[in-house]
Amino acid sequence: MKVSTARFGVSTARRNQMLDITGQVQQAIARVGAREGVVHVYVPHTTAGITVNENADPDVAHDVLTKLASLVPHKDDYKHAEGNADAHIKTILTGTSVTMHITGGDLQLGEWQGIFLCEFDGPRQREVWLKIIADE
Amino acid sequence: MKVSTARFGVSTARRNQMLDITGQVQQAIARVGAREGVVHVYVPHTTAGITVNENADPDVAHDVLTKLASLVPHKDDYKHAEGNADAHIKTILTGTSVTMHITGGDLQLGEWQGIFLCEFDGPRQREVWLKIIADE
Amino acid sequence: MKVSTARFGVSTARRNQMLDITGQVQQAIARVGAREGVVHVYVPHTTAGITVNENADPDVAHDVLTKLASLVPHKDDYKHAEGNADAHIKTILTGTSVTMHITGGDLQLGEWQGIFLCEFDGPRQREVWLKIIADE
Repeated sequence: MKVSTARFGVSTARRNQMLDITGQVQQAIARVGAREGVVHVYVPHTTAGITVNENADPDVAHDVLTKLASLVPHKDDYKHAEGNADAHIKTILTGTSVTMHITGGDLQLGEWQGIFLCEFDGPRQREVWLKIIADE
Repeated sequence: MKVSTARFGVSTARRNQMLDITGQVQQAIARVGAREGVVHVYVPHTTAGITVNENADPDVAHDVLTKLASLVPHKDDYKHAEGNADAHIKTILTGTSVTMHITGGDLQLGEWQGIFLCEFDGPRQREVWLKIIADE
Repeated sequence: MKVSTARFGVSTARRNQMLDITGQVQQAIARVGAREGVVHVYVPHTTAGITVNENADPDVAHDVLTKLASLVPHKDDYKHAEGNADAHIKTILTGTSVTMHITGGDLQLGEWQGIFLCEFDGPRQREVWLKIIADE
């Protein structure tokens, strides 16, 4: 077994956005030649998260972001002075990492699943960090 | 260290349900003979999640599901046309994977903890995927 | 690659509190001499969680806890008789574990990130469990 490290950047386009990063994760797995193991996907941010959900109908992402905005409004009675307390709270609800399985060299996903960076305070340049622990 | 893969299916009985899968995870650990390491528990679904919480009083699961239904109602102003946008959102709030520790061949759980598949769009047949990374 | 286990205790001071445990995790990594890999941080509790978020401005933690209390009030129409159903629900929303990366012997954190134990039913004595999977 071996540990490999990879990183890539993504640019978000809106304040709130779910950006599909599945392809970049698959490319990193192929590049290091991982066969059996896991990939830990992590964002080093406090106002953007990582999640796994449907990548077929973009209306799902729309509904997710709309509901989060109604539960955690942008403007509210927050103390944090930077105007993005909502983004911090949404990031905690979403989480900043996921662990995905690799079998036979392939990222294992359910039929409708994709990996998404969840931008809550964009547009920004964001980073995604990967640790791949796998047999080659 | 070695990577092992296991999968099992579960049947859910209601639209919203927390189903204790702790026993199946423990059996998989015993079957592969893992001694020291971790098990990554994953669901390949977009309307069902995985969580760790109390397995003693079933009222906890009732309260969790009731509160989630009040925060994310089944019927709301959603765009997703399949009628299960709430299930996608709840899945993102819950997460689709957990990583558990294995010590001395035993799944490490707190006194009151169990591992639950969280069904948000059942009843359905669901899958649980395991990657065990451990010494034997 | 090697699996190492570490544990430490923390005391919380209030019913709801975000307690920075980044230093204790870093010390455990140094103590086992891990160089390249991951650390799985886990709490064996059902009314306290683990998250990663901003450790610069304490107002962020204040806003997170205030918003969670408004979404999941302490007193509500709960069935669970112990008076802490809210703490169970908040723990599920937060999660009970995070996986962090280790590179060159260092815990990898974004510029503003820290690791927090999220107390939702304190004050209490709490435990944090670590599994470090890494090259030395």
